[in-house]
Amino acid sequence: MAHERVRDTSPITQSRPDRVAKVTLFETARFFCDVWVLRPGQAQAPHLHAAEDKLYQVLSGRARATSGTHVLDVGPGEVVFCPAGEVHGIEALGPEDLRLVVVMTPHPRPPAPAVQ
Amino acid sequence: MAHERVRDTSPITQSRPDRVAKVTLFETARFFCDVWVLRPGQAQAPHLHAAEDKLYQVLSGRARATSGTHVLDVGPGEVVFCPAGEVHGIEALGPEDLRLVVVMTPHPRPPAPAVQ
Repeated sequence: MAHERVRDTSPITQSRPDRVAKVTLFETARFFCDVWVLRPGQAQAPHLHAAEDKLYQVLSGRARATSGTHVLDVGPGEVVFCPAGEVHGIEALGPEDLRLVVVMTPHPRPPAPAVQ
Repeated sequence: MAHERVRDTSPITQSRPDRVAKVTLFETARFFCDVWVLRPGQAQAPHLHAAEDKLYQVLSGRARATSGTHVLDVGPGEVVFCPAGEVHGIEALGPEDLRLVVVMTPHPRPPAPAVQ
C-alpha cells in the first residue's frame, strides 16, 4: 500500500502500449514527482512550459533527451534539467523500457487542496 | 566535466567526516536538486521550512527519515515526501554510506540569476 509520505519507485515497471505510463508519487501546488515508464520508441514529444522547470532522472533504460538546443543520450543515474521557457522532451531508445523519475516545479495543474 | 543540462549521480560517492557532503546538480529560484552523501550516524537534524516542500530519494544505503509525525526506515528506490510546514530530517543507518537525491521547492535561498 502506498504510504502518504513514502513511495517505492522499484515496483513501478509497468508500461502501456498506447501511451507513456505515468504514476504520480507526490504532488502539491509546488511540484509533482512522478515515475514514468516508456517502451522503446515511446516519447514525450518536445514542448515547453513558460514558467515551470522539469527534471528527468533515469532509473533504468536509455533515453534521448532534448533540453533547449541540447540533444543528450543518457542512462541510469543521469539527471536532465529542462528550464522553464525552453523546448524539451524525451524518447526511450531501448532495448529495455525506460523508467524515469520526473519532477516539475511548480505544478502546472495544481491539485485541489486536501480536505483536512 | 559537468554538462549544463545533464549531471550523473553515479560518481557522487564522496562523504566528509565533518558534515553531510552536498553536491548541487541544478538550481533555479524554483528548486534545488542535490546529491547528499552521509556516513553512518550523520544526519540532517529535524527542522522545518514554512513554505518549501522537500523530497529525499534514496540512491544507496539505508535511512531513517522523519516527516511530520512519521518515522520511516527507507532504502534504495524509496522517496520520502516532507511537506512545507512540517518537521523533517534524515539519518544514515549504515552500514554503508547513505546517498540521496534531495529536491526542495521552491529554493529557500534562490541563486542569483545567470548573466545572459
